[in-house]
Amino acid sequence: MTEPDALPSLWSHEPRVQLRFRAGVKVADIDADATPGFRGDKSDAPTLQAERNTRFAELQEMLYANSRAGDTRSLLLVLQGMDTAGKGGIVKHVVGGCNPQGVQYRSFGKPTAEELSHHYLWRVRKALPAAGHIGVFDRSHYEDVLIVRVHNLVPPGVWEPRYDEINAFERELVSAGTTIVKVAMFVSLDEQKKRLAERLERPDKYWKYNPGDIDERLKWPAYQQAYQAMLDRTSTDYAPWHIVPCNRKWYSRLAITELLIEALKGLNMSWPPPDFDVEAEKKRLAAV
Amino acid sequence: MTEPDALPSLWSHEPRVQLRFRAGVKVADIDADATPGFRGDKSDAPTLQAERNTRFAELQEMLYANSRAGDTRSLLLVLQGMDTAGKGGIVKHVVGGCNPQGVQYRSFGKPTAEELSHHYLWRVRKALPAAGHIGVFDRSHYEDVLIVRVHNLVPPGVWEPRYDEINAFERELVSAGTTIVKVAMFVSLDEQKKRLAERLERPDKYWKYNPGDIDERLKWPAYQQAYQAMLDRTSTDYAPWHIVPCNRKWYSRLAITELLIEALKGLNMSWPPPDFDVEAEKKRLAAV
Repeated sequence: MTEPDALPSLWSHEPRVQLRFRAGVKVADIDADATPGFRGDKSDAPTLQAERNTRFAELQEMLYANSRAGDTRSLLLVLQGMDTAGKGGIVKHVVGGCNPQGVQYRSFGKPTAEELSHHYLWRVRKALPAAGHIGVFDRSHYEDVLIVRVHNLVPPGVWEPRYDEINAFERELVSAGTTIVKVAMFVSLDEQKKRLAERLERPDKYWKYNPGDIDERLKWPAYQQAYQAMLDRTSTDYAPWHIVPCNRKWYSRLAITELLIEALKGLNMSWPPPDFDVEAEKKRLAAV
Repeated sequence: MTEPDALPSLWSHEPRVQLRFRAGVKVADIDADATPGFRGDKSDAPTLQAERNTRFAELQEMLYANSRAGDTRSLLLVLQGMDTAGKGGIVKHVVGGCNPQGVQYRSFGKPTAEELSHHYLWRVRKALPAAGHIGVFDRSHYEDVLIVRVHNLVPPGVWEPRYDEINAFERELVSAGTTIVKVAMFVSLDEQKKRLAERLERPDKYWKYNPGDIDERLKWPAYQQAYQAMLDRTSTDYAPWHIVPCNRKWYSRLAITELLIEALKGLNMSWPPPDFDVEAEKKRLAAV
């Protein structure tokens, strides 16, 4: 450990507590501009982000090291959010801070014909992180109760039971040693408009723009309803949702980094003991 | 492009030319302490590495962006080297500089029972990078003519034809649009001893130590012979090997970063044009 394990003093409250979804919270009331629990401002972000990326990377290496010694635990980050909420930025700037060796990234777009021919959790199960790895879901099985519900891709009789199925699925993962960090990222309609407009101004951003994003934007109220149901019905003790306001990218990145650090610290890891006789190996090495 | 596209002036020669394996080069003569083509020293490395990581990340994003517009090209980095040569450090410090979204990492350890029940290229084909991705092989199909040959895991009649098979396999990949960057990393026996000793001194490094590393070390002459055959027989015009001296980690990281940048520049990419009417979309967005 090269760093003390305390929460940085710029945080007044632990993000895992402060941002945890609580029954009764209404999606329509979420202030995407807010910076809950943080007493600093944007000028504090670059230095703090770099420091915390280093801490995150250390813990990730320890998780990986333990898996080599037989520990089967893993971590799964689930990112859900509307277009432009900043999921890609989290992958690049937060997850990107740790060793690619221990990361399994998967984006869940429109299902392929093969995926559609299976149960909706089939492609999700295939992408689960191996022991010692951090899995990153850029969108996830929650698409099957979000876009699927909003666009009526299947009838209510099909998506309705999925909330319970997802809870059972996640309980199974947690029992098997996967810590799940679920993050719902919220950007305001105004901020989304600015971000989409920026993509239309810059030729190096055109590829991120999809005319369908505007169609989704028009369905905002239906999405709010679907997000509300998701939070109300799938935020469990073993896999709670966290609400992250994302109008300020620097804040959402800091907050999600802390959520990951806190989850890894919760595993109470130390470096694995050697499975060989250290002194005997030193002698062997000296001789060759 | 936020950076001029010239080779940094600290390089006297392009690494892809300087480090390319040439017929007649003997593995036994490789100076692992050397820093070919580089006129700077260790003190120049941190700043230059950070700058070039940024350039590499930009080009990686462009490769990824083009794949979203239908470009099927990809890049495959093949890392081969003895224990402690620094393969893991390249993954962490070089590949780690770009967006995990576009990277597919795969380490090839001892084959599983299922893998052994297939052709040796089966597991390799499954790990090939998708369009727009950078695949990273930490060890690779070359294990099947290195450790397999040195340890007599299959008879010569089985491994002998593999050199030609591998060439045919790689030709197929290149024809299909994958640029292959093959890097043979060389560390000296003395430096390897130091690095193994360090792992035995630090409890946070024990997990990287394997008593089998010493057994491999004792087979150094046989490995040199196997590496020589690999270079002599599989360095092709379409997928040449590069020899990277690795006693100085800062050098090997800078060199491999340049090899990747040069390979990506060779794809002559630009940002993909929009597949929508930009002005029409601006109007649509303004209205919602």
